[in-house]
Amino acid sequence: MNTYSSRLLEEAVIELGKLPGIGRRTAVRLALHLLKQDITKSQLLGNAIINLRSGVKYCKRCHNISDVDTCMICADHKRDPSVICVVEDIRDVMAIENTGQFKGLYHVLGGIISPMDGVGPGEINVDSLVNRLEVESINEVILALPATTEGDTTGFYIFKRLNDKVKSISVISRGVAIGDDLEFADEITLGKSITGRVPYSR
Amino acid sequence: MNTYSSRLLEEAVIELGKLPGIGRRTAVRLALHLLKQDITKSQLLGNAIINLRSGVKYCKRCHNISDVDTCMICADHKRDPSVICVVEDIRDVMAIENTGQFKGLYHVLGGIISPMDGVGPGEINVDSLVNRLEVESINEVILALPATTEGDTTGFYIFKRLNDKVKSISVISRGVAIGDDLEFADEITLGKSITGRVPYSR
Repeated sequence: MNTYSSRLLEEAVIELGKLPGIGRRTAVRLALHLLKQDITKSQLLGNAIINLRSGVKYCKRCHNISDVDTCMICADHKRDPSVICVVEDIRDVMAIENTGQFKGLYHVLGGIISPMDGVGPGEINVDSLVNRLEVESINEVILALPATTEGDTTGFYIFKRLNDKVKSISVISRGVAIGDDLEFADEITLGKSITGRVPYSR
Repeated sequence: MNTYSSRLLEEAVIELGKLPGIGRRTAVRLALHLLKQDITKSQLLGNAIINLRSGVKYCKRCHNISDVDTCMICADHKRDPSVICVVEDIRDVMAIENTGQFKGLYHVLGGIISPMDGVGPGEINVDSLVNRLEVESINEVILALPATTEGDTTGFYIFKRLNDKVKSISVISRGVAIGDDLEFADEITLGKSITGRVPYSR
């Protein structure tokens, strides 16, 4: 039985409900919210969604999201092109940029090796990373991959591919988060932060 | 500092983040999900959002959402036009239609009397309900309003306005939900279901 008295409402609820984490009930709430808002709000949202997918490009060098062929980060001459930080996806670039602590360039793999999900080494952007090491002058590659089995596998695979092509390969440090009590850290993290201890400095 | 390397992505995240219950982090996740999907998916969603707000109408008779001047429910000749169910908003119509238990028509108030939120009797569709009682041939008005102080206030106000104009005014029954253990029902609901007991029937 059809409980929608408006086909337009039904279509909006169906499409909103296709988004991850948004069920039918939430989709109805969002649609009714849009109905109460000014019409320009719906137009801004609708056009932003359409333009994003149709207009967006990926940087030819690092595969980061971009509006042009070379992303803002790769095009920024104030950044250090000799250090490349390898990440799984665009979200990681945004998270690291948010810290303001990294001034090198990135390389976005666009995924992680995961045989369970059918993602092999060929599906992620490793060849283009190897190629960058050959044509660019790079001193260090930082692996900033998830602390999971898949992340470790991917890291090891990249390490093997790059080992003889770059001076230094490092991984981001793991340990107890800033502000966290030791007693609440899981044993693996706490263990890692003890074995990976660093000289005291102020 | 701008952590977005794409203005299109930034705009999509900002607009998605304006939806209720969707923060920046979720907005980023939704935007990246849309990027991974086929372009037609984004177009369907974007157009559904734009068309909803620009195309939707409200039924001239019952204020339910509709694509034309008279909603599908009011236009359905198989329904009983002598019974009107009064609800707060469109979501309630959808919820009741979902049960398949009601074959009359609706009247959508479009809100509830709430002095705290500055909503007085003049802000909700009561005049048009009184008008319907005068021009339509109605035997019963069912009040299906929220079980809150505001719902009770609104119900009492409507009761006073309609009392001499219709044969029967009823309210939906309150009580322990089907499948719920008595011990988990709150005292007010349980009390209500005892005082409001009905003759045993199979």
